[in-house]
This record gives sequence, structure tokens and C-alpha cells, in this order.
Amino acid sequence: MKSEWLNSPAAELNTDAKKEAMERQSQLTKPPGALGELENIAIQLAAMQGRGNPQLNNIHIVVFAGDHGIAANGLSAFPQAVTTEMVKNFSNGGAAISVLAKALNAQLDVINLGTVFDPGPLSNVIDKRIAAGTKDFSHQAAMSEEEFFVALNIGRQAAERAAQNKAELFIGGDMGIGNTTASTAITCALLNKSAEDIAGRGTGLDETGLQHKIAFVNNTMEKFKSIHKDPAEVLRHYGGFEIVALTGAFIACGKMGLPVLIDGFIATTAALSAEKLCPGSAQWFFYGHVSAEKGHLHMLEALQAKPLLDLGLRLGEGSGAATAVPLLQLACKLHNEMATFAEAEVSSKH
Amino acid sequence: MKSEWLNSPAAELNTDAKKEAMERQSQLTKPPGALGELENIAIQLAAMQGRGNPQLNNIHIVVFAGDHGIAANGLSAFPQAVTTEMVKNFSNGGAAISVLAKALNAQLDVINLGTVFDPGPLSNVIDKRIAAGTKDFSHQAAMSEEEFFVALNIGRQAAERAAQNKAELFIGGDMGIGNTTASTAITCALLNKSAEDIAGRGTGLDETGLQHKIAFVNNTMEKFKSIHKDPAEVLRHYGGFEIVALTGAFIACGKMGLPVLIDGFIATTAALSAEKLCPGSAQWFFYGHVSAEKGHLHMLEALQAKPLLDLGLRLGEGSGAATAVPLLQLACKLHNEMATFAEAEVSSKH
Repeated sequence: MKSEWLNSPAAELNTDAKKEAMERQSQLTKPPGALGELENIAIQLAAMQGRGNPQLNNIHIVVFAGDHGIAANGLSAFPQAVTTEMVKNFSNGGAAISVLAKALNAQLDVINLGTVFDPGPLSNVIDKRIAAGTKDFSHQAAMSEEEFFVALNIGRQAAERAAQNKAELFIGGDMGIGNTTASTAITCALLNKSAEDIAGRGTGLDETGLQHKIAFVNNTMEKFKSIHKDPAEVLRHYGGFEIVALTGAFIACGKMGLPVLIDGFIATTAALSAEKLCPGSAQWFFYGHVSAEKGHLHMLEALQAKPLLDLGLRLGEGSGAATAVPLLQLACKLHNEMATFAEAEVSSKH
Repeated sequence: MKSEWLNSPAAELNTDAKKEAMERQSQLTKPPGALGELENIAIQLAAMQGRGNPQLNNIHIVVFAGDHGIAANGLSAFPQAVTTEMVKNFSNGGAAISVLAKALNAQLDVINLGTVFDPGPLSNVIDKRIAAGTKDFSHQAAMSEEEFFVALNIGRQAAERAAQNKAELFIGGDMGIGNTTASTAITCALLNKSAEDIAGRGTGLDETGLQHKIAFVNNTMEKFKSIHKDPAEVLRHYGGFEIVALTGAFIACGKMGLPVLIDGFIATTAALSAEKLCPGSAQWFFYGHVSAEKGHLHMLEALQAKPLLDLGLRLGEGSGAATAVPLLQLACKLHNEMATFAEAEVSSKH
């Protein structure tokens, strides 16, 4: 599969702003390096935003929702109706990401790419249903080429709206019963791993459920291994609409130079897909947390990612990324507002 | 050494509020446990605050500053004058903790317990100078019994002021050139460790400096090992005024039932001392982060602590604890504001 847009390069980081930020960090009233990763965050954000004093006030979160044909195979602890019900919960402000977005004073968009059930018109939810869920990827590709590009483009447009609204950070979240199985298959294919390495308990499978999930993914991967060399085909075959849209959004952020804070297992699958489809995208990514899904570590390693939090979260919706936002904001404030040795007349090192 | 106050017990947690919070967590629209440590934080805070819906709006930070006689032995990368200079920097709002306190809308008290140099009258700094620094503990006890109890009491009063101001969380920070050496000695004595296990580079010692620090602590500990069985004597002999005051503050918080968020290497030495002097204190402690000082892990292990962050911070001042505050606040908001399955009409697990 080809796309002119995909082939255009990711934006470049601003090395002058990075140098300016590094210089400032060395002058702040603290031992060199004493603020650890908070220093690196400020420097990295300066390089991304092209200014020595990075700011992070305007946060834009988009949750992408969609159902998965493979859910018919008993791979989740929750019934498929929950995807639609949670879309309603987002609309009413009752979900974790709703609460977090409010606390962060962030814009929250919810996009329904294809729940099995029609939730009807909902406030605060953009209806972009492509189909009533994807097809069961153990039999056929989850979506057609046309559907793939529609989903990718919905993600791209969501990121472009964020940029138009002067977002300084983009977070993409996911909702879709069955999507840890889809992510497992995509990751196994992209990283040439077995499902034993990547699959986890999702929303709460027991040991029998986990073993079924592993066997299901391994059997399916054996069947379709001929497509594994093409990342776009991997994503189209195994991907949910929400994972493809996340990938499109992350690629678009990279091309526009909008920093992204990646969430957990599902979002990192999309981050990995974005980097495979459009190398260089990942230089625009921060990583919010390490998911309790054990396969997440393999994805993070492949992306050379250093996540900010490790709190055993495994909810999705963008919740782990949203939880990490204050760390980035405090890093900016420390960088911009601390006194320098000269300003404070503090002695420097011996 | 004895004190009636020290012998009174720590407050007890409220098990009814804890049960109420656990019950609520099980009803929120997410898979059970999917918010990981954020769920545990809310439940623990409910038990501490005695209410099913814990709140964390009113944060009280106290930075305790003091100089160390052992600094004369070339154990720090920075000159001793920096303690006084940083007290001025706190006064002017230019230090890391000043910026963090402002960002968190937290009360910030700074108490000078004994800098070598007199900074003169400063706004926003409480002058409680006990002496011009402690004595060199490689020759004699850092402070007299009287000085010890004065420092302990200054900490106690600082915590009591926080409680009077209706603080919902207490953070204690430290400033004192040489205090990682004091903390190393205290921790080695309390945990029966060698300085090789506990000592780190502090504000930036090189390898030669670190080896000197290790030898210095080990030699001193050998000389004074007869006092190591008495935690109060350990603290008096090796402790800086700021470490003793932190210990007094943490003990007072435990007795009053005021939750504490512990900072890094120095504050955790005080937390460990508080638990040794007044068992049960530690049930009122959260831990903000893992310090880059490697010995911190041994302290955390002894306290069975699960720190929230691991970002390579090693600044002190309470900065690592302050950085973690938004995580506790978001945990409360998620707990209080998310919809239940019943409210949102979302299906629960199969």
C-alpha cells in the first residue's frame, strides 16, 4: 500500500533551541543533572517546540473507539457491548480520561470509528463509524484498503485539528474490547516475536483465557505470516480502526512537529506502527508510563523509550499519558522559573 | 534519651473509610485494578483522612536548612556557603522547591536551623538558628542532647502549624551542604550497613571524592559503634539539625494523622529515624520518588516503601516529593469523579 502523505518526512527537531535549553539548565541553581529526567524533558521539549523556554499549557486528547471482529472468539473478560457503553460514558464525562482531561484543563475529543452497536447521537462524540466493527482477522483482513486509509485519515485530521487549536501536546487514547489481542498480533508481526512474549491479561483474563489468547494469536500469525514484511499490511490485517487512527494521528504529529505523549499498550503499538510506516516520527514522542501488560516492555525497548511512570496502569483511554502530563508541565516550569547561579548569587561547584 | 511525647503512639488508620473507598473503587467504570497504584493511593488516603472520598488540595511544604561540621572534611562538591546562599534563594523564590510550591499552590515554609553564615533577616524564612552548624561528628556528637530536642521540637511545631492550617498533605525538604554524608552515617548505623552500600555522589563528587566519603564514614562509624543500638543517639551523633527536625516533623505528622509525602535520600533517612523512634509513624508516609543516590533503595526496602517516581532526581529540598503531588491529586479525582458501572449503565465483567 502506498500514500504520498506517508512518504513525506517527519519534521526535524530544532537544535538551536535544544542548545539554548541545555545552556540554561547548566546555569540553574542546582547541582548539574540533579533534576534528572525533568531536565531532559525540558531540553527535549525545547527542541520540539523550537524555543528555549518550552511551555505546556494547551493539551489536546483524542480518544479513538472501535470494535474488533476477533472479540467473537472469547478473548476478553468484558462483553463487546462495553465499547459502545464506554463511548456513552465518555460523552457523559464519567470515564477515567474524562476526569483526567477535566483536571488537566485539556481538550478531549472522542471519535467513534466503528462500534458494533450504534450509540445514537451523543454530545462530545464525533461519529465517524466506518463499519460495525472490524472483521475477524483470524479469517481475513480486519479491514479493506479503503477502510484502512479512511481510518488513518481520521487520525490525521484529529491531529491536524489539535494543531489548529494551538495544542502544545497531543495524547491519543483508545477504547475497543478486544484491542489488546489486535495489538499483540501487530506487535508480534512488527517485532518478529511470539505471542508468549507479548500477550497479557488485557481487561482481566484468567490463566486459561490468557493461554487461549496466546494460542489464538500464534495460530493466526502462522496463517498470515506472508504479510508480516509490510508494516501497513500488518496494521490493516490485524488492526482495529482505533489503532490505525492512532497511527495516523501520531504520524501526522511527527510531520507537523507536534509533541506526543504516548499512552500504554495499544497507543505504543500505534507509535511503533507510526515509526515503521514513517521513520523519524518517534523523535516527537514522549512515553507516559509502563503498562501492566508485560509485552509493553518489548515495544518500549524497540522504540528506545524511557517512560515517565510505572504505576501498574492498564486501562487505556490515554489515561496513563494524561496522568504523566503534570510531570512535563513541572519540568517546563522548573526550567523557565528557577533562578540561575548568577541571578541568585549562589556559588557553583568547587 | 527519653521524651514523653516520643513515647505516645502514632495515630491509627480508619478502616471503615478504607473499606468504603475499596468498595467504591470496585464499582468505577474500569476493569478491576486497571488504575494500579492510583487506586491504592486513593484507598490509602481515604484510610488516612478518615473519609471515603479523600481530597488533596491543601499542601504544606517545609524546607529545613542547616550546616554540617563534617563539611570541613572535603565531602561535598559545593562549598559550605551554598547552604546560606540557597536559604536566600528560597527567600527570593528562585529555587526548585520555590517553583514547585508555586505550581502546586502549596504553602512553603523555610526554617533555618543553623547555617554557618548568618543570612540576615529574610522574608519567607523562619530564623531558628540553633548554632552555626553542627559539630564535626568524626570527633564528637554533632549536637548536644539539648540541641537535639530543640531541633526535634522545631520540626514538631512546623508539622503542627501545617495541621492548624488544615494541610491535607505534609512535605518536608532539606538543604545542607554535607548532608548526604550525615544521612549515610545515620542509615549505616540504623540498618547495620557499610558505607559502600549507602554512600553516593551527593551533589556531584567524582570517584576519588566518593571513595574518600566511604572511608570517612566507615572510619567514623567504627569509632562510635557503641552508640549504634540507640536510634536517638545515632541521630544526635551524626545528624544535621535539618535531619533531626525532619524526623520530628514526620513523627508529629504520624501522631496527628497528617499524611506525609517523603522526598529522597535525606528525607527518607528522617522517615527511617521516625519509624525507629516512634514505630507506626511510617503508616502515614507516601514516598515521592527513588533518588539517584543508590543507598536510597536500601532505606526504601527497610521501610517497605513503593515510591511513585523514578526519574533520577537527586536535589533534595523536597523537590522529588513535590513533583509527585499531582499523582496523588489525580488519584483522588479519579476516585471521586469517575462514574460507577450502575451510574453509567456499563456492563461489568463476564
